[in-house]
Amino acid sequence: MTTTIPSKSTALRTHTCGELNASHAGQTVTLSGWTDVKRNHGGVLFINLRDLYGVTQVVANPGSPVFKTAEEAKSEYVLRVTGKVSLRPGANANKNMPTGEIEIEASEITILNASQPLPFELGEHAGVSEETRLKYRFLDLRRPRMAKNMVLRSRLSQVVRNYLYGLDFNEIETPLLTRSTPEGARDFVVPSRNNPGEFYALPQSPQQFKQVLMMSGMDRYFQLARNFRDEELRSDRQPEHTQIDLEMSFVDEQDIARVVEGMMKAVFAYIGEEISGPFPEMEYSDVMLKYGSDKPDLRYSLEIKDCSEIFKASGFKVFSEALAGSGVVRAIKGEKAAVFSRKDMDNLTDLVKARGAKGLVWLRFKDGKFESPTLKFMTEPELAALKDLLAVAEGDAVFIAADKAAVAAPCLGALRTELISRLKPAQEKKRAFLWVRHFPLLEKDPESPNWTFTHNPFTAPLPGEEGKLDTDPGNVLSCQYDLVLNGVELGSGSVRNHSRAMQEKIFGLMGYDKEQVQRRFGMIVNSLDLGAPPHGGIGIGYDRLIGLICGTDSIRDVIAFPKTTSGACLMSDAPSVIDDKQLKELHLKITD
Amino acid sequence: MTTTIPSKSTALRTHTCGELNASHAGQTVTLSGWTDVKRNHGGVLFINLRDLYGVTQVVANPGSPVFKTAEEAKSEYVLRVTGKVSLRPGANANKNMPTGEIEIEASEITILNASQPLPFELGEHAGVSEETRLKYRFLDLRRPRMAKNMVLRSRLSQVVRNYLYGLDFNEIETPLLTRSTPEGARDFVVPSRNNPGEFYALPQSPQQFKQVLMMSGMDRYFQLARNFRDEELRSDRQPEHTQIDLEMSFVDEQDIARVVEGMMKAVFAYIGEEISGPFPEMEYSDVMLKYGSDKPDLRYSLEIKDCSEIFKASGFKVFSEALAGSGVVRAIKGEKAAVFSRKDMDNLTDLVKARGAKGLVWLRFKDGKFESPTLKFMTEPELAALKDLLAVAEGDAVFIAADKAAVAAPCLGALRTELISRLKPAQEKKRAFLWVRHFPLLEKDPESPNWTFTHNPFTAPLPGEEGKLDTDPGNVLSCQYDLVLNGVELGSGSVRNHSRAMQEKIFGLMGYDKEQVQRRFGMIVNSLDLGAPPHGGIGIGYDRLIGLICGTDSIRDVIAFPKTTSGACLMSDAPSVIDDKQLKELHLKITD
Repeated sequence: MTTTIPSKSTALRTHTCGELNASHAGQTVTLSGWTDVKRNHGGVLFINLRDLYGVTQVVANPGSPVFKTAEEAKSEYVLRVTGKVSLRPGANANKNMPTGEIEIEASEITILNASQPLPFELGEHAGVSEETRLKYRFLDLRRPRMAKNMVLRSRLSQVVRNYLYGLDFNEIETPLLTRSTPEGARDFVVPSRNNPGEFYALPQSPQQFKQVLMMSGMDRYFQLARNFRDEELRSDRQPEHTQIDLEMSFVDEQDIARVVEGMMKAVFAYIGEEISGPFPEMEYSDVMLKYGSDKPDLRYSLEIKDCSEIFKASGFKVFSEALAGSGVVRAIKGEKAAVFSRKDMDNLTDLVKARGAKGLVWLRFKDGKFESPTLKFMTEPELAALKDLLAVAEGDAVFIAADKAAVAAPCLGALRTELISRLKPAQEKKRAFLWVRHFPLLEKDPESPNWTFTHNPFTAPLPGEEGKLDTDPGNVLSCQYDLVLNGVELGSGSVRNHSRAMQEKIFGLMGYDKEQVQRRFGMIVNSLDLGAPPHGGIGIGYDRLIGLICGTDSIRDVIAFPKTTSGACLMSDAPSVIDDKQLKELHLKITD
Repeated sequence: MTTTIPSKSTALRTHTCGELNASHAGQTVTLSGWTDVKRNHGGVLFINLRDLYGVTQVVANPGSPVFKTAEEAKSEYVLRVTGKVSLRPGANANKNMPTGEIEIEASEITILNASQPLPFELGEHAGVSEETRLKYRFLDLRRPRMAKNMVLRSRLSQVVRNYLYGLDFNEIETPLLTRSTPEGARDFVVPSRNNPGEFYALPQSPQQFKQVLMMSGMDRYFQLARNFRDEELRSDRQPEHTQIDLEMSFVDEQDIARVVEGMMKAVFAYIGEEISGPFPEMEYSDVMLKYGSDKPDLRYSLEIKDCSEIFKASGFKVFSEALAGSGVVRAIKGEKAAVFSRKDMDNLTDLVKARGAKGLVWLRFKDGKFESPTLKFMTEPELAALKDLLAVAEGDAVFIAADKAAVAAPCLGALRTELISRLKPAQEKKRAFLWVRHFPLLEKDPESPNWTFTHNPFTAPLPGEEGKLDTDPGNVLSCQYDLVLNGVELGSGSVRNHSRAMQEKIFGLMGYDKEQVQRRFGMIVNSLDLGAPPHGGIGIGYDRLIGLICGTDSIRDVIAFPKTTSGACLMSDAPSVIDDKQLKELHLKITD
């Protein structure tokens, strides 16, 4: 091929604004970019010309033919500048700027485009409302922090792809116009003009298609897939989000874990962080007991302890009634939390009450002894055992919940999060990954006499648990697992049912008859008895992962064009009304 | 990281079915895969075990503990086989099979899943209707040809990404829930539950967002983007298709061409074909004159010739009337086409009449002279000049159209395609790339007194042509270009307007007032005067490109889960009716 592939040199520039240094001195170059900052020093004009790659200082001397144009150039004017690279005198070199050794003595300046005054300053610290930022997203993305987020998101997607291709995964595009299966969240639907009265649905995930790809023998599939959920939005939700979706044949949970751990290692290596593995893994039941959450933040070791044994003969009605009703008594220690005021304690009590607890027992340990409004209900041996179990030291506080395990666990889990937030204990590591395994397969459907899946209707029971499907469905453990990072659920996956009989049995427990199974899940069940291999996979939230890496609380900061919490795009003004003609073609009418 | 990253070894296999050879002899291995072919040779069972990577022969000897299971395994049963790799005796080695040197002496066979008899044979040559193939797509994709298409599609997407990342492009995901802009094709729309009566649209392309990314300073964007068009479907159309979409700042047409040529070089290098560049380029006006099509198949040199000069004084009314009405007389030669019968000639005449021509003049050249029903209307000097111009030789035929250029060109273009199809001239090259440049910017809107864009409302006029916007809008040439490969339009792009005044002037010619411009294109025009850089780009149809590479006429063969021509997915049975509850939440009612 005789064509020269350009690097970043184009018809309008020989170099970018980020690459020139002392080695280029004496060369005549052409740069194109934005007028970032302009200063007048003793009649000489200095323009910082900015592009995605950096900033270069341009000098226009009074009397030079370019001076007039340099004077005209206002903030954000787009310029093309030709000139000689010259070394800045030693004292003027700027060590904080990659191009700080040089400047361009402009011999030609062209205004490629003017700019009206911007509606807000691009400076990082300017206080601009998110509404304004979203309306002028193209300006917001010019800010170095946002541009860096976009580039990092892009580069890391290629790190993920290179890693998976290295393991012989294939990226296969699954349809976005799919069939509505009203499980889980609400579907976005798309009316079909060719089939009046019928609708496509935008996929909540490629789940069924990726399983079908395993039936088709594709062996290892992945996709950076766009998923859609018509939910009430929150700061970490968007109507469309991106997922690293993968599925593998002939694997068990551990195979999938190793692939994901290697991916995380590659991703964090790109940003200079070494991640070690295999990641710790815990049973769902253990993690709920110890941390009161299925996504605990393990940067902190703080644990919940069961003290049912200590209080088994307690005369304190709060404890004895809970234990008599096959509940539990569990406690968590707040290090140096004895300084919490009565009002603090009331706030913490409200926190657990909001999660269904009847109250919260708390004790401060001060001057070598416990103090508490409920101290009188506890015996000395009980208090001594409690102190031992929690290794209570001077200045600590203890919080006790007595209730059904299903209430005590999330209450103490929320309390744990609150204690971490208030007490700010030292982080034991920067990135705490955790596999939470073996979630229950089924739970009671609150709206029917049936069971419903806890995560995914296609998850297989844990081998050995199948027998309980007939006798005790609520206690069947599953091959479902979550990947947690720093208290955030990054991903969720499972080994799937590859037996039609097992899948139909589970659908039966969910109350679906054969016809309903066919209608909702026909594509899957029909393929299970035509040579379906054992398979499993995971979906990892890409927006959340990049949010964590970029250190932002809002995934809107890592999505180029996000929606507001009401689902609007303030820049393009979507959604909008459509023509009556369009509605008519779709055989639709809008109602009140 | 102490985790071992697996290659393709998993809990259920040590190797794949495609990798074992003589060097593994003596090793005990475990394979998992599908029962492809089973044969009984003198009581010994031979199973060809298949996975994505290949086929390995498994041997079960009578009397061995695995024999019974091997007997049970029917076609497409999923098996796990453990056994020793042994060399096949020299005469039994199969040189046509990568694993043909060895076989596995099975010591353990587990049926991982049974299979019902398949609804059709997977053998490549089995005649299965496309409807059945689409209904059981997971089986269709098990066929080696289809699996190979899917893998190649996947791998080439990574070739494209690696190439573009190498040039510092960033892949940035643009929204799929966007605003409806009823230009061009019909939008698919998505009702917004949160905003009753309003709709999102699925994007026909990321055009506006990618331009906005240039305004945001992202410099070089690309995306393998999903595009949606609610059109009448044909064999090469799908309601959703994938496009290699890219946009660059500070570039001219040639910069973009070099990037695309390098990409094509990388893509074809992956399949072992060397592509040379720069690609030939032609003016739109020339290509219409010479080939009568804006996407000519240049594997063949056959050209249309203008003979208006030859016939300027013709007494033949067909020619003289066309020329008097500022039309043209053009001809094309069919090599060895003098064998065409009168019926053939009638068919060719019908072909051009269907495209608006009044008729077709044809002449056979036989025994050193022309013969034709209209020979009497042509003089000897005219015929001699015609013979010269077209280099007519014994046995050739000549076809002449006389009409307005806008009619004659496409008629002779269609005739050229038909002649190539009938005469099968030798291909001069395997891959004929062509840039067609400088399309007219505007054409008359057939439904209004206004002008409309020919390709894209954001295309810039060719530098120097701007003045004609006021005086002769229909003849303004543009920076619009198409990439053509073997007669297929692979891609289309342009350098865009980066001046708000110019963009608004063009919208004005299209009949939009300020309010309409704001409503339809506000996102673009509002950003043009806040520091928009010169920019341009292209979108390349990925399905078509892969279709050409895989040598299939139907893009359905390179899409994992395509729709039928009525927009249905026969496997998942989409689209479908949705619940009344869902409709009510969306404030919609279905009408007749």
